[in-house]
Amino acid sequence: MTDTKILLAAIHKDALRIDMAMRDDLAGLTPKVDGLLAEVLEYSLFNGGKRIRPLLVVIAARLCGREDAEIYQLARAFEYLHAATLLHDDVIDNADTRRGKPSVYRQYGLVSAILTGDFLHAKSMAIVGQIGGKEALALFSEAAAGMVDGEFMQLRNAGRYSLSEDDYIGAIMGKTALLIAAACEIGVLYAQGHERKRKALRAYGVQLGCAFQMIDDLLDYQGETAKTGKPVGNDLVEGKMTLPLILALHRADAQDRGRLLAILGSEAARRQAFSEVYHLIDKYNGFSATREKAEESVSIAVQQLEIFTDESAASDVTVLQGLTQYVLKREK
Amino acid sequence: MTDTKILLAAIHKDALRIDMAMRDDLAGLTPKVDGLLAEVLEYSLFNGGKRIRPLLVVIAARLCGREDAEIYQLARAFEYLHAATLLHDDVIDNADTRRGKPSVYRQYGLVSAILTGDFLHAKSMAIVGQIGGKEALALFSEAAAGMVDGEFMQLRNAGRYSLSEDDYIGAIMGKTALLIAAACEIGVLYAQGHERKRKALRAYGVQLGCAFQMIDDLLDYQGETAKTGKPVGNDLVEGKMTLPLILALHRADAQDRGRLLAILGSEAARRQAFSEVYHLIDKYNGFSATREKAEESVSIAVQQLEIFTDESAASDVTVLQGLTQYVLKREK
Repeated sequence: MTDTKILLAAIHKDALRIDMAMRDDLAGLTPKVDGLLAEVLEYSLFNGGKRIRPLLVVIAARLCGREDAEIYQLARAFEYLHAATLLHDDVIDNADTRRGKPSVYRQYGLVSAILTGDFLHAKSMAIVGQIGGKEALALFSEAAAGMVDGEFMQLRNAGRYSLSEDDYIGAIMGKTALLIAAACEIGVLYAQGHERKRKALRAYGVQLGCAFQMIDDLLDYQGETAKTGKPVGNDLVEGKMTLPLILALHRADAQDRGRLLAILGSEAARRQAFSEVYHLIDKYNGFSATREKAEESVSIAVQQLEIFTDESAASDVTVLQGLTQYVLKREK
Repeated sequence: MTDTKILLAAIHKDALRIDMAMRDDLAGLTPKVDGLLAEVLEYSLFNGGKRIRPLLVVIAARLCGREDAEIYQLARAFEYLHAATLLHDDVIDNADTRRGKPSVYRQYGLVSAILTGDFLHAKSMAIVGQIGGKEALALFSEAAAGMVDGEFMQLRNAGRYSLSEDDYIGAIMGKTALLIAAACEIGVLYAQGHERKRKALRAYGVQLGCAFQMIDDLLDYQGETAKTGKPVGNDLVEGKMTLPLILALHRADAQDRGRLLAILGSEAARRQAFSEVYHLIDKYNGFSATREKAEESVSIAVQQLEIFTDESAASDVTVLQGLTQYVLKREK
């Protein structure tokens, strides 16, 4: 078996229980809500997602000694909020596909995508408030608001070709890392785990999230559409300043930098010059340096797990380590 | 002074405190969040709204004997959620204007409208969870989810020309009445008011909300654009089945009904035949009957207030009565 397959086998039982908790919820809704809404919920929630965020809630709680049926109910809120974000992102990015299938936006239209996102958003907040309590809700809604702020930063960054690595990190923190970190932290909180565990697992989540986004940005240049389910080069077309490009711009000589800036400044050029940009990023090791930075993040993430020395923690720690490797190696 | 001016004077102090609570919040955000996000928040929150929903929270709490600084902080969440809904509605309806100004969607674009809505949505949930507690959050998020469900019902209803009055009430309950009712109920809950008061004020909110939406639907046919800030006849163009049209369809003879259905079935006809449809609705008293139904709702709403006999309640009861009259008489 490959590492990924071993990991998937290890998380299979938890993922199944998370899916069951989501199914329970939807089954309770179906007679009550509009039929189309129920259909769009089903389509957007059960589309092959790996349930990483809810999984982190469950594992973090278990690492602090608590596992009960309710944790799966709490955990599903993270999948709901994540799905809500994707629904709105697809509208914003005018995305045709999501995980290789037509996006909700394309399949059901703008109205369904926006409204179903709002519905899941409200549901997720209600769950976290109900099961997690006030402190968990504060963290959760902070992550939700932070995601918006991250998107705004990215929007603003799109025209800023002198963007620093720090600006980039700021944007991906909001966009990706905050929710993943909140999943870990809220799991600890739910289990009333020790402050030391809370800090460690939060830091793990932040670093895992950053690595995840860096690899995501790499895949936008280097992925295969057949695997990612997304067209390659989308970030460039949209003028998104992601890490490979930022690093290349900082390292390039005057001539290459000038050429990159000329391409970035014209939408037509961004659409046509993908392979030239790819070559220039590669020339200045933008891709390999991005991968190294993702590896650094992962290495910090793994360090956080050292405090979990108890034997009962071993299998969960292995899964958390495995997730970091999965993030680095993923091709989609 | 007109009745409206007297009402506005009576609510002036509360509205000011609600605005101050919102300003405080934004001031706390501004150094932290992206500049554009802060600008869009300012634009969408301070645009001449009457703060009816937060006002209802404050009054309901006061009628149950509690008024403190925190109630204004809680109340602002209702304006946030309301604003979030309007931001997304403008995208969905492709609306150019909102209260006579360019909509956020038109002024700042799709991305800003969707994301700022999401931001306010998250903020509002956090506030209600934090200050109102679990039960309040459950009501609040139920109203938020109910609004989505109402929109979906309306969407589905758009092609259903045989729509009954009950279907219509179902859709406007979700779309408008649930949040107004939740504002009243959460105010009582915050003040730990008696169950009897809770039921009465919730029912008041439901009826006020229904009357509000019925008049809104009337204004879409009969309003003056200069006052409403919206183009007249929009609902017809979009094929929305609102009460004046539903009542006329049910009452019309075979020939007129056939003609109405023919117009409804063609987008081009809906765009061109406004005055003909207007005339047909009027012929079957669709407008006057809608107004009568709004008056019935208001009358039930006012009845609910009879339990507040205490002298200290008098001025708040007067405001709640005044609001029902304002809803009936409003021209925008």
